Amino acid sequence: MALSAARVGTVVPLLDPNRVIGIDPGLTVTGYAVLERRGSSSAAMIEAGVIRPRGDDLARKLAWLHKAVADVIKSFPASAVALEQVHSRVAFPRTALLMAHARGVIVLAAAERGVPVHDYAPSRIKKTLTGNGRASKEQMQHAVMTELGLGRLPEPHDVADACALAICHLAIARIARGLAGA
Amino acid sequence: MALSAARVGTVVPLLDPNRVIGIDPGLTVTGYAVLERRGSSSAAMIEAGVIRPRGDDLARKLAWLHKAVADVIKSFPASAVALEQVHSRVAFPRTALLMAHARGVIVLAAAERGVPVHDYAPSRIKKTLTGNGRASKEQMQHAVMTELGLGRLPEPHDVADACALAICHLAIARIARGLAGA
Repeated sequence: MALSAARVGTVVPLLDPNRVIGIDPGLTVTGYAVLERRGSSSAAMIEAGVIRPRGDDLARKLAWLHKAVADVIKSFPASAVALEQVHSRVAFPRTALLMAHARGVIVLAAAERGVPVHDYAPSRIKKTLTGNGRASKEQMQHAVMTELGLGRLPEPHDVADACALAICHLAIARIARGLAGA
Repeated sequence: MALSAARVGTVVPLLDPNRVIGIDPGLTVTGYAVLERRGSSSAAMIEAGVIRPRGDDLARKLAWLHKAVADVIKSFPASAVALEQVHSRVAFPRTALLMAHARGVIVLAAAERGVPVHDYAPSRIKKTLTGNGRASKEQMQHAVMTELGLGRLPEPHDVADACALAICHLAIARIARGLAGA
């Protein structure tokens, strides 16, 4: 029943899951990674980088970020944008609230291009990449390098985190397709 | 020196402070109020209302909200958008983070139309309207009704809060103009 609902619902990536954009939002640095599923298990990095919003106030930074993310989404048509879930346990409230402003305009940019947004809990990302929902930072870095066939970790860490998100999405979409018999 | 800096800086409302849009952001209900300074002290409500974003996920709600706020800003050209400052003391982290997504697309809509965003701490709003930074809800409601010459409080409370923000901005802009000798 759940699978049937997924197939007839709005989960477009189940229908065309080959390319995904992982985004790690931030007002100072936003990391992104465009990954593509190649064959049955490996993923290739098509493009990755950071957006450093310019501007001397929140409004200008958000406008910059929104435009830059919209450009990435337009340049690399994807079936999904993958984000980390909003945390309800907030360690640094002000920082988290500003990050949420950034996340808001990123989600908007995806919606404006009709690209579905999927979000994943940190523990699910860790479990999907390493088999362990409490994996260490080093284990996660190793998994990202292995999955993408890279000799070293993408830098800065915002890009590596965006890669992890995109890998997680591709893996979960693949499992969902398998279960759905696609 | 500070005044001189303000006059040559980007504080456009000091130059044209007659109309302001106060906005109280929320993903379920966003209240807004377009106020205009009439004469030396009173303010008139030009338009006020609520936006209730439709959509079955965050992305659609944000797209709806962004469009609706952009329409208000386009329909009622104003010299400023007034918001409440981001709180660093977060009582309900998840709710606050979702509100910050909404705030992000509202700030973006203002930036896209070139309208400066001003934000005010709750204590400053209370002090400006009532003389008391710890005014009660009832005192604030009374101040809003008196300032706008209304027989009853605007409803829902999101609209009343948006009115209070706009009144606060007009009062502070007027004081700033007075100090600047305009």
